[in-house]
Amino acid sequence: MPTNKQIHLDSRPQGEAAAGNFKLVTGQTPEVREGQVLVRHHFLSLDPYMRGQMNDAKSYAAPQPLGQVMGGGTAGEVAESRSPRYQPGDKVVGMGGWQEYSVVDADRPGALRKVDTTHVPLSHYLGAVGMPGVTAWYGLAKIIEPKAGQTMVVSAAAGAVGSAFGALAKARGCRAVGIAGGAEKCGYVTSELGFDACIDYKEHKDAGSLSKALKQACPDGIDGYFENVGGMVLDAAVLRMNAFGRIALCGMIAGYDGQPLPMAYPQLLLTNRIKLQGFIVGEHMEIWPEALTELGMLVSSGKLKPRESVAQGIESAPQAFLGLLKGRNFGKQLVKLA
Amino acid sequence: MPTNKQIHLDSRPQGEAAAGNFKLVTGQTPEVREGQVLVRHHFLSLDPYMRGQMNDAKSYAAPQPLGQVMGGGTAGEVAESRSPRYQPGDKVVGMGGWQEYSVVDADRPGALRKVDTTHVPLSHYLGAVGMPGVTAWYGLAKIIEPKAGQTMVVSAAAGAVGSAFGALAKARGCRAVGIAGGAEKCGYVTSELGFDACIDYKEHKDAGSLSKALKQACPDGIDGYFENVGGMVLDAAVLRMNAFGRIALCGMIAGYDGQPLPMAYPQLLLTNRIKLQGFIVGEHMEIWPEALTELGMLVSSGKLKPRESVAQGIESAPQAFLGLLKGRNFGKQLVKLA
Repeated sequence: MPTNKQIHLDSRPQGEAAAGNFKLVTGQTPEVREGQVLVRHHFLSLDPYMRGQMNDAKSYAAPQPLGQVMGGGTAGEVAESRSPRYQPGDKVVGMGGWQEYSVVDADRPGALRKVDTTHVPLSHYLGAVGMPGVTAWYGLAKIIEPKAGQTMVVSAAAGAVGSAFGALAKARGCRAVGIAGGAEKCGYVTSELGFDACIDYKEHKDAGSLSKALKQACPDGIDGYFENVGGMVLDAAVLRMNAFGRIALCGMIAGYDGQPLPMAYPQLLLTNRIKLQGFIVGEHMEIWPEALTELGMLVSSGKLKPRESVAQGIESAPQAFLGLLKGRNFGKQLVKLA
Repeated sequence: MPTNKQIHLDSRPQGEAAAGNFKLVTGQTPEVREGQVLVRHHFLSLDPYMRGQMNDAKSYAAPQPLGQVMGGGTAGEVAESRSPRYQPGDKVVGMGGWQEYSVVDADRPGALRKVDTTHVPLSHYLGAVGMPGVTAWYGLAKIIEPKAGQTMVVSAAAGAVGSAFGALAKARGCRAVGIAGGAEKCGYVTSELGFDACIDYKEHKDAGSLSKALKQACPDGIDGYFENVGGMVLDAAVLRMNAFGRIALCGMIAGYDGQPLPMAYPQLLLTNRIKLQGFIVGEHMEIWPEALTELGMLVSSGKLKPRESVAQGIESAPQAFLGLLKGRNFGKQLVKLA
């Protein structure tokens, strides 16, 4: 069996996550038994939700256990199969974790999904045509329920979720406005992703200032807001929500290190009759086929041009992940493993 | 025409509302023209939403104009009719405002509603079988959507909305837990209204302490929360919400004087996949008939025993209203006018 390099969670963060929380471990891949397949990972997906799992706190997912391989989405190729379901060479997506190989029970429902790379590159199945894309789809289609002509806003707009959100909103005839960090990302959001406007939150030091910029970018107010960030960005958006607006609460990366993150103006949720809903896309598997079909078409037709930040080699995963938490990535953050 | 005493809004509050914001004005009722009726008000309803309308702020309703009769719900009797729709002596509910008489266009949709006082006393049409009751009904049935066996919590539980919420929750097989101010109100909530438990928020100085009391009263967590108050009470409830909990946001009386009222733990709305929704019952007239039917049956069968605090005479309305904002009322606050 091949050597398998893994990244384990070695300790829990005190406040900010750090490289020292991770540990590189080298071992052998386990034997492939009857009904199992060996997958060689080509790409590892790095996602903000992983930061929450590093804490030992009550959350929607069980915490990542110490001394074990970090969990995470992977895209790769079947290297060896002892299951009639898979052939060597099949391209597959799964939850292989931060390692180069995984051995998977082929019969476990949802363990692996074969993907077609004719029109969609393999890596996109971890981004626009994967969990992040479906996340954007669920928040937009099922919580926000947009109408043509309405204004949709998303934070972290240059990221994997945000970029898909913009393409999906434009496909529904909406005005799409992004919030992102830095001029380069904002340029990408408007010129390549097709958003109508993008605001650089780094140019604003408080919610009031950011809210004024939102007023300019959203002259008719905000009808739907997709939140990845929390804190001042959420406050600014709440100040501009129209009556009967909808907020899909997907992430609050600003609070992942445990700092308090109060919402300044909850009264506005009442006076404007806002619906705010938190969600986790993994709990809504029934919508994945429909969402993936639409996302695949947007990518293959060129209407959604996802960017990727690709780190090289499993050893680079911790630094790439810490960079993601700081917003240093540009588009979907991946680690190339083969 | 009879003399008509009115209370006008004379000035807007600077922070806390005060008696000096109101002014007693005595005049004649206007002439009753063709198609109009003269209503003699027996009861004026005092409600927390009126505090919001005293401000000149953007809100869901236009601000109460200065120098005009304060708006408000009234129950009374037709004293003179020049419309075929009404006979003198008809008992009617409308929005007559803070005055002894009003002249109403009988053909204006929603202007007046005839009520049957055979089994339900007239005053209850301003409370349990009126707007406050329907408010509780909408939040419970349409936003929270309770299932039998789930735990429902309401703040201001001894009030007109809270008491109706408890009876409606019990009728759906739920555990009903109230939050109210003081031992006397809590005793009423459990012994007369049939709640399973009630917590005196005045015994708790912060959200952490109140949250511990909620944990005891709600051993299985909170599935549905109906908010009338905001601030520390909302924070405490959010700390105890179960996954997929629903929060109906009806009022935030704690912030009516303009003080900041941040929500401390919005992250929990995400991690617990909470739906929080603000609403105004007047925007959902389609549900009123169904709601009023259920509420009327609960009252006439004795399953909902609404209390009333009744002030005497229009002159007493400002002080009674200021008392309501401080929680000095016990149950529905009314002013008896005839």
